[in-house]
Amino acid sequence: MQDIFAVNEGHAGENAELFKRKGVFVINLMASPGAGKTSFILGTISGLRERYKIAVIEGDLASKVDSERIRSQGVQSIQINTGGGCHLEANMIKQAIKHLDLDGIDLLIIENVGNLVCPADFSLGESARVVILSVPEGDDKPLKYPFIFQRCDVLVVNKIDMLELTDFNMKRLEDVMRNLNSDVKILLLSCRTASGLDAWIDWVEKELNREGDIG
Amino acid sequence: MQDIFAVNEGHAGENAELFKRKGVFVINLMASPGAGKTSFILGTISGLRERYKIAVIEGDLASKVDSERIRSQGVQSIQINTGGGCHLEANMIKQAIKHLDLDGIDLLIIENVGNLVCPADFSLGESARVVILSVPEGDDKPLKYPFIFQRCDVLVVNKIDMLELTDFNMKRLEDVMRNLNSDVKILLLSCRTASGLDAWIDWVEKELNREGDIG
Repeated sequence: MQDIFAVNEGHAGENAELFKRKGVFVINLMASPGAGKTSFILGTISGLRERYKIAVIEGDLASKVDSERIRSQGVQSIQINTGGGCHLEANMIKQAIKHLDLDGIDLLIIENVGNLVCPADFSLGESARVVILSVPEGDDKPLKYPFIFQRCDVLVVNKIDMLELTDFNMKRLEDVMRNLNSDVKILLLSCRTASGLDAWIDWVEKELNREGDIG
Repeated sequence: MQDIFAVNEGHAGENAELFKRKGVFVINLMASPGAGKTSFILGTISGLRERYKIAVIEGDLASKVDSERIRSQGVQSIQINTGGGCHLEANMIKQAIKHLDLDGIDLLIIENVGNLVCPADFSLGESARVVILSVPEGDDKPLKYPFIFQRCDVLVVNKIDMLELTDFNMKRLEDVMRNLNSDVKILLLSCRTASGLDAWIDWVEKELNREGDIG
């Protein structure tokens, strides 16, 4: 297992260097199945497409459902089917980006396999790690799956329009997160109603402009 | 990897034989994080505890939250913390059941790690595989995570009280499931409102009585 991680870190480092050279900001998006990753990507596209060039890599065990949803918005999307594999690895990304013209891309969003466990251990060369937790999953998920929540830059709490149907306690979630990961930025939103998406779009745009300054 | 699977199958076979000899019906319960596994177990306990002896094994990466919820109902519960591991394996169950008096147990429910990918590949020696899909996750999950849905005996669709807040299409789900797994029994329920739990309790009770006849 140590070998697998070391090999992955090697590929991830190469990816990161390439992304930096090309000025591409890369988001590794992780969540449980059905937390709303694809809807979140569609909301992000809709908020940024006028000003930035976006591409998406979709990771799934099987099916092309997600990449077809992205492409229907006129955005380039590459589907990776892991054939049972429970996470994306840096080498898969390395192969996939050969099909992208990175010079023409500002933002690359990678939708990882829906899984709160295995993706946490595999860097892809990303600029930022974003985890979505959806309200119906419950506020106790960071207690039960601490590793992925410890290592994320942004925690998006999605489906806040469902709060009243649940006993989700935002204060309890925030307390646990501050303990696990004191630097995390927490954003509350609903992809269904678009409420709260603005703050996320602002965050990405700030990062994109910062990338531009450096590159 | 083939070795890991073969070793697991060996332990699973031994577990299965022991469970059969002791007349214990064993459920391997799998789902995404937050689909409602623990609430479902609590509902099952409440429907059967008067007539049957029940024990629970809780699998989580970390924390004792779930086993404490079970114990608060006066039911014996053993917590397995995988420390980052993404699924339970048969050998973990073999060790855990040393702490149970199987002669005094009719039904053992094993709550697997919340994950729609890895648990599918590891038998535990169970009598039945039950997968929960919760409505907010969406009806497309069997398309994207086919392996776990292909190999289950019962598919429980939980949180049906949230149907109206989503675009979940039950017909679409049933069509996909019939293709993947034509023998699967599909039950619709809400652990929150207890609606539909009766049919599940009936199913378990039928299986428990069948076990009794054989043993």
